[in-house]
Amino acid sequence: MPTFVQIIEFVGTFAFAISGIRLASAKQFDWFGAYVVGLVTAIGGGTIRDLLLGVTPFWMTDPVYLVCSGLALLWVIFLGKYLIHLHNTFFIFDSIGLALFTVVGVGKALALGYPFWVAIVMGSITGAAGGVIRDVFINEIPLIFRKEIYAIACVVGGMVYWACDFASLNPMFTQITSGVSVFIVRILAVKYKICLPILKGNQ
Amino acid sequence: MPTFVQIIEFVGTFAFAISGIRLASAKQFDWFGAYVVGLVTAIGGGTIRDLLLGVTPFWMTDPVYLVCSGLALLWVIFLGKYLIHLHNTFFIFDSIGLALFTVVGVGKALALGYPFWVAIVMGSITGAAGGVIRDVFINEIPLIFRKEIYAIACVVGGMVYWACDFASLNPMFTQITSGVSVFIVRILAVKYKICLPILKGNQ
Amino acid sequence: MPTFVQIIEFVGTFAFAISGIRLASAKQFDWFGAYVVGLVTAIGGGTIRDLLLGVTPFWMTDPVYLVCSGLALLWVIFLGKYLIHLHNTFFIFDSIGLALFTVVGVGKALALGYPFWVAIVMGSITGAAGGVIRDVFINEIPLIFRKEIYAIACVVGGMVYWACDFASLNPMFTQITSGVSVFIVRILAVKYKICLPILKGNQ
Repeated sequence: MPTFVQIIEFVGTFAFAISGIRLASAKQFDWFGAYVVGLVTAIGGGTIRDLLLGVTPFWMTDPVYLVCSGLALLWVIFLGKYLIHLHNTFFIFDSIGLALFTVVGVGKALALGYPFWVAIVMGSITGAAGGVIRDVFINEIPLIFRKEIYAIACVVGGMVYWACDFASLNPMFTQITSGVSVFIVRILAVKYKICLPILKGNQ
Repeated sequence: MPTFVQIIEFVGTFAFAISGIRLASAKQFDWFGAYVVGLVTAIGGGTIRDLLLGVTPFWMTDPVYLVCSGLALLWVIFLGKYLIHLHNTFFIFDSIGLALFTVVGVGKALALGYPFWVAIVMGSITGAAGGVIRDVFINEIPLIFRKEIYAIACVVGGMVYWACDFASLNPMFTQITSGVSVFIVRILAVKYKICLPILKGNQ
Repeated sequence: MPTFVQIIEFVGTFAFAISGIRLASAKQFDWFGAYVVGLVTAIGGGTIRDLLLGVTPFWMTDPVYLVCSGLALLWVIFLGKYLIHLHNTFFIFDSIGLALFTVVGVGKALALGYPFWVAIVMGSITGAAGGVIRDVFINEIPLIFRKEIYAIACVVGGMVYWACDFASLNPMFTQITSGVSVFIVRILAVKYKICLPILKGNQ
């Protein structure tokens, strides 16, 4: 039986892969290209984190992530026309995935003995770097650099993790609080169209 | 005396570097830029594979790959006008390089104790990722995501490797059969213009 | 008290980050995106070097690089309008940074026991790769591939390092001579508009 965290991780991977595959399909990628972009969106952040931390990339120990991205491709191929009606559902899944990926990234860095400021960076990379690689592959300026409160949600979640840990709270409670804060920041930012200021040009 | 595999590896590296340098020249790169793009096309896939596997990148142990890319640059600078007549020759060299790089990638992952599904991914990365970095550097959407049966040939070659190994065939025979199948899939796909389906947009 | 090298390193990091942030601002990035592009410009080259060398990325051991990039962002936000008058100052700082980064990269590879040709590559990656990632992120063809004598200055500096070491010169003198040669090549190339030849297209 998969654990609760494994189920959430699967859902998050699926939602991230769907986001990559949809953007690839808008650029006329073939099935293989769409699969690769979906996969990289889902596992790219964690892979960069693991390379920086000096450990074996997580997806090389379990084929579930490759399979999950393959299921996401099949979904878009065969059920793609229903995706548009599920826009809000996928947004929720994507935000849950972001929250979980961030908490996993922060926790992994801490478990390896790195200080909190490194762990917050690793949490943010885990959550947001896959989308950056996705946008480089489809030849667009990364979305998170221009419009969305996305990585900032990861940073906030990492700081909440830090605060809870500083207050010696229970580890499970710390992780849940951190994940929930990522989720809430992301949802509120989209709902109320909160953006960071644009840096003025010609400087 | 170089071995047969070393000669093939040199030819493959040269062909990959030529492909990068030609695309760079179409974008008005200077000599240095063309050299870097050629080098990255040739060694990029193997470098990513080695970083993921946690071993020292292969080209850092022998300067032959840097020299080989330099010879490819000199060729394009001084003999470039003859390249167009050698189009088919280079296509054959490129396909031989793809076959060899795939087999080397699969074999290296297996030798480090990784399971076959990781080895197939590593073979495909070795063969195809250099071209992806090349296309990112020249600011184009990676060719293999949209048009060509290229990485799929690597995947097929990796699966043939698996099947031969499963049937307990002789290691040398396994590697040759795997390489030949990469080569044949690539040649047939180009000759008969076989493509994967395009993923429909607006999803 | 910070040492002389630490002060130079801080100045170089600041100048590299400013170059990334200014290019990001020209593309309407938000504050977060500009920070990330500035940070990656400053630490990207050293990070790739450390991954290739198999050691922990240097910025993960000291938060000063993240803080320094943050100060560069604040500078552009609040004092950006004065930047244009400081154009020459920043060019000098940027060239000092390039010189120092190159020497640090060469020295680190040698200290790990790699041969000189690897060390020269590592010095060039340390100095120039951050700017390549910056240009990929802002979706432009990397500047150093088309116009500027930039990485070539790193290569020259690495070769001077080699020559001084071959002549058994004092290590400190070797490093200073190497750095000064990077600086001079860079300054002369810009002052006299020295470029490498462009590779002719349609080949």
